[in-house]
Amino acid sequence: MDLAMVGLGRMGANMAERLVRNGHRVVGVDPSEEARARAADKGIEPAVSLAAAVDALPSPRIVWLMVPAGPPVDKLIAELEPLLAADDVIIDGGNSMYKDTLRRAAQSRTSRLHYVDVGTSGGVWGLAEGYSMMVGGETDVVESLRPLFEALAPAADKGWGHVGPSGAGHFTKMVHNGIEYGMMQAYAEGFAIMERKDFELDLHQIAEIWRYGSVVRSWLLDLTADALEKNPSLEGIAPYVSDSGEGRWTVDEAIELEVSAPVITLSLLERLRSREQDSYGDKLLSAMRNEFGGHEIKKR
Amino acid sequence: MDLAMVGLGRMGANMAERLVRNGHRVVGVDPSEEARARAADKGIEPAVSLAAAVDALPSPRIVWLMVPAGPPVDKLIAELEPLLAADDVIIDGGNSMYKDTLRRAAQSRTSRLHYVDVGTSGGVWGLAEGYSMMVGGETDVVESLRPLFEALAPAADKGWGHVGPSGAGHFTKMVHNGIEYGMMQAYAEGFAIMERKDFELDLHQIAEIWRYGSVVRSWLLDLTADALEKNPSLEGIAPYVSDSGEGRWTVDEAIELEVSAPVITLSLLERLRSREQDSYGDKLLSAMRNEFGGHEIKKR
Amino acid sequence: MDLAMVGLGRMGANMAERLVRNGHRVVGVDPSEEARARAADKGIEPAVSLAAAVDALPSPRIVWLMVPAGPPVDKLIAELEPLLAADDVIIDGGNSMYKDTLRRAAQSRTSRLHYVDVGTSGGVWGLAEGYSMMVGGETDVVESLRPLFEALAPAADKGWGHVGPSGAGHFTKMVHNGIEYGMMQAYAEGFAIMERKDFELDLHQIAEIWRYGSVVRSWLLDLTADALEKNPSLEGIAPYVSDSGEGRWTVDEAIELEVSAPVITLSLLERLRSREQDSYGDKLLSAMRNEFGGHEIKKR
Amino acid sequence: MDLAMVGLGRMGANMAERLVRNGHRVVGVDPSEEARARAADKGIEPAVSLAAAVDALPSPRIVWLMVPAGPPVDKLIAELEPLLAADDVIIDGGNSMYKDTLRRAAQSRTSRLHYVDVGTSGGVWGLAEGYSMMVGGETDVVESLRPLFEALAPAADKGWGHVGPSGAGHFTKMVHNGIEYGMMQAYAEGFAIMERKDFELDLHQIAEIWRYGSVVRSWLLDLTADALEKNPSLEGIAPYVSDSGEGRWTVDEAIELEVSAPVITLSLLERLRSREQDSYGDKLLSAMRNEFGGHEIKKR
Repeated sequence: MDLAMVGLGRMGANMAERLVRNGHRVVGVDPSEEARARAADKGIEPAVSLAAAVDALPSPRIVWLMVPAGPPVDKLIAELEPLLAADDVIIDGGNSMYKDTLRRAAQSRTSRLHYVDVGTSGGVWGLAEGYSMMVGGETDVVESLRPLFEALAPAADKGWGHVGPSGAGHFTKMVHNGIEYGMMQAYAEGFAIMERKDFELDLHQIAEIWRYGSVVRSWLLDLTADALEKNPSLEGIAPYVSDSGEGRWTVDEAIELEVSAPVITLSLLERLRSREQDSYGDKLLSAMRNEFGGHEIKKR
Repeated sequence: MDLAMVGLGRMGANMAERLVRNGHRVVGVDPSEEARARAADKGIEPAVSLAAAVDALPSPRIVWLMVPAGPPVDKLIAELEPLLAADDVIIDGGNSMYKDTLRRAAQSRTSRLHYVDVGTSGGVWGLAEGYSMMVGGETDVVESLRPLFEALAPAADKGWGHVGPSGAGHFTKMVHNGIEYGMMQAYAEGFAIMERKDFELDLHQIAEIWRYGSVVRSWLLDLTADALEKNPSLEGIAPYVSDSGEGRWTVDEAIELEVSAPVITLSLLERLRSREQDSYGDKLLSAMRNEFGGHEIKKR
Repeated sequence: MDLAMVGLGRMGANMAERLVRNGHRVVGVDPSEEARARAADKGIEPAVSLAAAVDALPSPRIVWLMVPAGPPVDKLIAELEPLLAADDVIIDGGNSMYKDTLRRAAQSRTSRLHYVDVGTSGGVWGLAEGYSMMVGGETDVVESLRPLFEALAPAADKGWGHVGPSGAGHFTKMVHNGIEYGMMQAYAEGFAIMERKDFELDLHQIAEIWRYGSVVRSWLLDLTADALEKNPSLEGIAPYVSDSGEGRWTVDEAIELEVSAPVITLSLLERLRSREQDSYGDKLLSAMRNEFGGHEIKKR
Repeated sequence: MDLAMVGLGRMGANMAERLVRNGHRVVGVDPSEEARARAADKGIEPAVSLAAAVDALPSPRIVWLMVPAGPPVDKLIAELEPLLAADDVIIDGGNSMYKDTLRRAAQSRTSRLHYVDVGTSGGVWGLAEGYSMMVGGETDVVESLRPLFEALAPAADKGWGHVGPSGAGHFTKMVHNGIEYGMMQAYAEGFAIMERKDFELDLHQIAEIWRYGSVVRSWLLDLTADALEKNPSLEGIAPYVSDSGEGRWTVDEAIELEVSAPVITLSLLERLRSREQDSYGDKLLSAMRNEFGGHEIKKR
């Protein structure tokens, strides 16, 4: 098939490359000349503008957005609408908030465009191993894109699926990331307990043991083993954990749906906590203890 | 009444003083000459040893221990047993673990001594305001000590009670402290949220407002207002929160009783967290994110 | 002073009554004839419509809204704007979301009206004991309303204050309620632990003991003692806990400000949990345990 | 090699069978005649008593215990000690608390026996896929048992290792199970959120999608997919989750080591919560809300 990939960052470039490797024709759009050049080396046709990319495609056009969630997506859609015609397809493969997707899909319908949301997991490993994709949108449109999903997935019939109407793909990906936060935190806590214990455990060895036959074996554990092999004492890494949105959205959604999700929630809160250098709350607790019990305050 | 107060630290000295003020005779025991001298100034009769103190009392002797929980209590009991006779009374007014109290009470029975546990709350303010006391032990023995409790409590019939058999006093005090952890953490979080917000709120003013008429008014809030008046920005206080045992025991007990107590539990965990300078878990999370997503690691 | 009180429900009627008792003139508006009649008995002048109430007031008019948060407030403001003139004052004393207040205050400025937000705590006890009020708005406008706040507060100079610009009052009240959730949950957990323990503790007695001299004494504890006196075994009460918005907003706000507030957050989640009758998550955990370990599944 | 397997329950029988399949000679001991008969069918030599089993082995004897943690292990060791001689080896492959293991290993040394602890993961799937084993004990003794571990593990050099001195194996397995609790809870929460959402998601389909290429792929997810395939709506399963000890021990250990492990801890608490039918705490919260706000209590 022919499609445009808009955004040739880490994710977009790799996905475009995997599509090309599987015989598809990809026109790649990115404002960075360097990104376009790198893409060209992989067999992706570089385009300097959305208009150029759209022109280079047969009808109905398929435009796959792979850009940061939020305003960049709205901006691109606004630019694309005048360039596209009825029955063209916009795919949002990024980590958009599913409520934004619901809004964008409704708006696209008024322009007689089709809007497909693809929650995409796999990170930097997706190029080699394939991507896991949760697809939301109209059944026949999703079906028409099947060759693309089969090329991107780990296997033609595995790792992707049409999970529901518009928004369902991004919703499912959001929850996926919430689970990811919880799993990561569970491992982090377990390894931290072992690190503190005076058995002088070799944490890389233990991660390797668990990779085979244990109940906790997983791909995240494979990566943990890899990280611990390269840097067993995690030298030079600050205890500072970023978050990128989906965790917060999952927490919000759980509360909105009135589902108690304490582990996913605490996983997010622990990340916030990792970034607090000088907690006002902790200082106040110390001051309170001094007030009622005369307990000594630790000075800074 | 006549009694010996063993341990003239902050709590013991104040309690002895409050008893003396209310007309009781207190023999005070403490290894520190300075503590004994200070006590003497308050009308407490200093004694250089347990034996001297016991000798100075009429039968049945009443010996009130006000020392740190754990081995110090067992050591004192071992020293006291040969000095005491049937029907003498040992009172443990400290923060002993209630299971230790069960063991000690059983052991005391074999020596025909009476053992009374008094969970005591009130901290440094108890001298002026009276202590809240949860008393465990035999009904008639507790009743015989009524004049002491009436003198120590905020009012003769308020702030103390015989809550159950041996151990029940310390058990109840343990849970009291668990609740205290939860309340403190709730306030600390609330004030931290207000401190972060760009409304330039005056946190001392808000604490004062809440002290009158609000749902969250409490003695801990009075203390918080006091602390914020003296040091609104909590200057010079390290974000480091100690814990002294009862919180952990409450968490253990809740799990043993299979009662889910997430807020008390998290309050304890937050204190542990406040003392972690360089969390291995957080470093591992950062390393994992880099592994799967190529997310940048913050260097230290 | 003269003012209109819009909404004569539990809170509005009591506040109007307290104002009347303190010599103010209150015109009361409510669609319910019964509510207006009840108010008239307390010396409140009933008005059948906003227009009638506004007409009955001298300039500048003061209109105090005491209605449920959300659309009702916007609806009333829309009705009021054509009735009011420059320099009239709208007070929102309800539990509005502070971001709505920011929007409404900005909109009022375009109509040259003054908008004051009053976070109000005290519940059904406020009539007798006075209300705790956190006031947001322009300094001179708030100052001009001082007689009203002094009448409503527990004492003229206690329990209320001008905490900041528009929105700051409702923001502060929101956090107040978040803290309230945490404190309530801490007590609930502690009492649940004591209830489970085989010491046959009298929980009402313990609540009473703690009310005097203990570190956990508070108004919420007074209420708890009262509830336990009336119904020690909590007979006939379903284990079902509602929530009314401010807790959720506090959790959202904490995450937005990147302040980790686990205890307030878990307090909310426990309320959600109390309402889950047939947790899908728990069923899935049971199914998973059966899958990997052959552990027996409890049938329903 | 020759060894006795004591305890032919689900785990012991499967491990014995896997050893036999790999050419080892296993004498199986179990009080149940039926269990012995089933074992005999798999090529395991049944023994009616420990004495008979020990007699059937060449020196140094190897006795592998695969029985429930706690008193059963102590009882067996007490019976074994008079039957064994210097340099014989006792292996505890069950889920013993590591502090019990430290005690038992010390005691074994006084009898000149060797004690090896093997934390074993893999559940009912271990027979086919191999077991993950964390081994604690003396280096040369563990090394002498290598053929057994190579036979039981998924591959000779994968899925097992000597992680440290006595106790280190069970300690590591304990933490493994703590992580397992956290991972399971993360999945359970995520699927519960999706189940509640009105997208009519097919949860089995989503689990299958995630199994390939996603960040959350894992063996637990494979099992979840399997459970959801068999019973998508989890019909007939009570929302009741048991726990078997290691989770509690991990929580205790984390607190003892002063490592904050909120996710593992909350995972345990959620299991306790799933078993509470009529939460006293929730009833008290409802009663409190009624006290201060007049909020309606839900009747049962």
